[in-house]
Amino acid sequence: MANYRGKHLVTTQDWKVEELETVLSLAAEMKKNRYGSKFTGILKHKTFFMFFYNPSVRTRQSFEAAATELGGHAQYLEPRGMRLKTSQSAGETTEDAAKVMSRYAEGLGIRILEDKVNRYGEGEALLREYMQYGTIPVISMAHDKYHPCQGLADVMGAREHLGNVRGKKLLQVWGRGALVRSWCSVQESLLINSRMGMDVTLAYPEGYDLDPQVIEWTRKNCAANGRKFEIIHDPVKGYKGADIVYSRNWMSPAAYGENGLDKENKEKEIKKAMAYQDWVTDAQKMKLTNNALFTHPMPVDRGSEVTDDVASGPRSIIYDVAENRLHVQKAIMALTMSDFEYKNKKGGRKR
Amino acid sequence: MANYRGKHLVTTQDWKVEELETVLSLAAEMKKNRYGSKFTGILKHKTFFMFFYNPSVRTRQSFEAAATELGGHAQYLEPRGMRLKTSQSAGETTEDAAKVMSRYAEGLGIRILEDKVNRYGEGEALLREYMQYGTIPVISMAHDKYHPCQGLADVMGAREHLGNVRGKKLLQVWGRGALVRSWCSVQESLLINSRMGMDVTLAYPEGYDLDPQVIEWTRKNCAANGRKFEIIHDPVKGYKGADIVYSRNWMSPAAYGENGLDKENKEKEIKKAMAYQDWVTDAQKMKLTNNALFTHPMPVDRGSEVTDDVASGPRSIIYDVAENRLHVQKAIMALTMSDFEYKNKKGGRKR
Amino acid sequence: MANYRGKHLVTTQDWKVEELETVLSLAAEMKKNRYGSKFTGILKHKTFFMFFYNPSVRTRQSFEAAATELGGHAQYLEPRGMRLKTSQSAGETTEDAAKVMSRYAEGLGIRILEDKVNRYGEGEALLREYMQYGTIPVISMAHDKYHPCQGLADVMGAREHLGNVRGKKLLQVWGRGALVRSWCSVQESLLINSRMGMDVTLAYPEGYDLDPQVIEWTRKNCAANGRKFEIIHDPVKGYKGADIVYSRNWMSPAAYGENGLDKENKEKEIKKAMAYQDWVTDAQKMKLTNNALFTHPMPVDRGSEVTDDVASGPRSIIYDVAENRLHVQKAIMALTMSDFEYKNKKGGRKR
Repeated sequence: MANYRGKHLVTTQDWKVEELETVLSLAAEMKKNRYGSKFTGILKHKTFFMFFYNPSVRTRQSFEAAATELGGHAQYLEPRGMRLKTSQSAGETTEDAAKVMSRYAEGLGIRILEDKVNRYGEGEALLREYMQYGTIPVISMAHDKYHPCQGLADVMGAREHLGNVRGKKLLQVWGRGALVRSWCSVQESLLINSRMGMDVTLAYPEGYDLDPQVIEWTRKNCAANGRKFEIIHDPVKGYKGADIVYSRNWMSPAAYGENGLDKENKEKEIKKAMAYQDWVTDAQKMKLTNNALFTHPMPVDRGSEVTDDVASGPRSIIYDVAENRLHVQKAIMALTMSDFEYKNKKGGRKR
Repeated sequence: MANYRGKHLVTTQDWKVEELETVLSLAAEMKKNRYGSKFTGILKHKTFFMFFYNPSVRTRQSFEAAATELGGHAQYLEPRGMRLKTSQSAGETTEDAAKVMSRYAEGLGIRILEDKVNRYGEGEALLREYMQYGTIPVISMAHDKYHPCQGLADVMGAREHLGNVRGKKLLQVWGRGALVRSWCSVQESLLINSRMGMDVTLAYPEGYDLDPQVIEWTRKNCAANGRKFEIIHDPVKGYKGADIVYSRNWMSPAAYGENGLDKENKEKEIKKAMAYQDWVTDAQKMKLTNNALFTHPMPVDRGSEVTDDVASGPRSIIYDVAENRLHVQKAIMALTMSDFEYKNKKGGRKR
Repeated sequence: MANYRGKHLVTTQDWKVEELETVLSLAAEMKKNRYGSKFTGILKHKTFFMFFYNPSVRTRQSFEAAATELGGHAQYLEPRGMRLKTSQSAGETTEDAAKVMSRYAEGLGIRILEDKVNRYGEGEALLREYMQYGTIPVISMAHDKYHPCQGLADVMGAREHLGNVRGKKLLQVWGRGALVRSWCSVQESLLINSRMGMDVTLAYPEGYDLDPQVIEWTRKNCAANGRKFEIIHDPVKGYKGADIVYSRNWMSPAAYGENGLDKENKEKEIKKAMAYQDWVTDAQKMKLTNNALFTHPMPVDRGSEVTDDVASGPRSIIYDVAENRLHVQKAIMALTMSDFEYKNKKGGRKR
């Protein structure tokens, strides 16, 4: 019987594959039996803190609903109301905040993206500070490096439509667009899909390298499964034979200037990204695939990252994946914030 | 047995009278038996989204409490956190937002008033876009055209004090004031009260015409019931013989300029409206009535729309009407967002 | 059997000692049996309004969790969304707001501090206006004068570590810092600890006098218990023989200028307060005490009010006190907003 009470979730790479399988299996059962009494008492009268350094819609909606469906309540917190200590101003230390929060709630979700930190990695450092001082599980609700709940929802969605994804080919492709997007969803997808046994092709224009550590892990994950991992800089070639196409804009490493991701850097990034006319997922490119599913972590920048006919087409699974955010988050919350025990009948990597 | 699962509520004019009667009857029963177990499980573990393009107090308080009292939870959402696509910026389409929201929640309330749109009717168009793409019921929490929950609360309050309102006279009168108010509550009142069989007098200074479509419908509603509908431009005459006086400021059609209801237009409207010294409901005017009830959808602009002695006087039903917002909203949510079935023992138009 | 349904809580000084003892005893039982079914149905399906004129973290987290743990729901309200009448603008009167809120909820918490009012006492006046017009209990969630829930949590924490505090010595000491803090927590501590039978030493630099009414009441409370009360202006002497040291910055009476506590006044206050180098609680001073506990209502301004080694040391009870906010608030809500009856087996002042 599995229970991971107290376990943090910063990236799926930190969890064992069988633990991820337990989450996915429980999530699937929760989806089938959404308001079943088996699950609605798990967080009864318990509080989950959602701490949004960056505002969010999908993440907030799905986490708050997850708490409600488990019988508990999620509080929507913003740092605006907090007098936190910074190098410039007096205020509360993370130690004090984390220790007190641990007295009130059973779990703490944190969202902190590029524009709230000065350097890549500082968002994750903050999560780890809360983990160090607090005594309740910390769950990333997306931070500058990873987005584990998105990654789990991606895999759950792909399996719903493809069955086992082992040996299937994932094309993870950069998309043009004006949103200067985070690396978190894309990096998480690389990590979890490579561990699930997919062949992975990562395609992006030169200059849009991701975190070398993530690339190194993805390479190792693929190798451990005997699968291929390749990086290409061609907007078309990667589509050939793909079973899943995942398109998404992301910013270049140059986006972090001396003052972090400030307005000036953002404008430069937008200008640079919008120039890549060819990096749009469209029907013509999809024809090269193995009748691939189309996926995206949403919100979709239609017309830039992907054309309407693909995003709304019969092979698009974007809404299913978005829904799965709810279910995987319920499963994670149940397993890490309560004594709920789950027996994964499907066993380890099966399916 | 009545159940309206999936039915949208944009204005009461879209619903049949017997459906409105069912809502009113259920609301009355819910008021008598506020925390009764018959009702507290209806939205158990379910989520209702309250999407506030315009902030609100009364509406938010009453909808959130309604969800709580039905066993569910209402999420307070603001577009601030959303990256919605506009003509100027990249972001999410209403289609995508609506489809994902439909996966997380059982119903969606939307509030969008004049100052958030460029032209009268654009608020309602947004509601209808969410209805088109989503798969859950959409409820207006007040938009530029209508305010159906307010209209239902008005009728419920009037009946609590007058019994049947059929054949009674409603004076709907413009009030001076600096709030440049929406047409939504006033238009909804005209529509629902004319359908409930009241004689309706609409009084306002020249230049403050409402939506011609609403006037046309009100005229037809009255005619269908064999009742009178008149429009006058006299601040006193309408009080004669009235059974209910409903005073409220509203903006003139000129308020929407080329840039919508911008600051400059607002200032012009305030100046214009404040000049009408005679358009205040006061004790002297109330003496002309048939000992009329005084009502107002609140917040009341005391001293401008109505004098203190009337607003706080023995015939004022403003707090009862405000309370009824809670009960009619609970009834609407129960009937449209769950499988709850209600038998209206009172039958159709009775009472 | 005790039940205080409808009773307001502006300061503990308004309540009888045996009533406070009942709250403290119930809070202790709730802490031991945090999610016990004895308590989780008390506010079932009921709403508590948290009205934050000033934002807050700790207070919001603990009140919202309290409502959840009692089976109810707390709504987070800000005046931003409210069109309240002021001397400058049209809007809703407190009378109307209070009367309608009373229809929707079982209780109303209000937080309003110095920077939202023009003169000391105006925050409390607003609370009392809500009490006058509304029909539900009003609880201070900290206002310009008092912070009763903090005071109760302080006493609860002290007793957990010292047993009975009667006859023990409390040093309430001003701390330097840049936060220009409210008098509310400090004044509440003086009032409740003097009533609980402690010897009280109040130490601050000349010019930092508190409300003379509070000083007068503290003097009387101590006298009634046959205990000592002294005010000193020495940063060290008061530590001698203390059993509890409570350090906290607070602003001087000069902080309220003609325009209230505006930015200019705040800057003057910061400059003035930071000059007092000696007014920091540190290990050396703590050595003079009777192995005293260290307490603080948090957030702690580490390095200014107190050194890290003391705040995080073995005698610090700051996290326990912070946790107790939750439990005393649950006890207050249960006793004032429901028919829950509690028998304090420990009797009156015992323990």
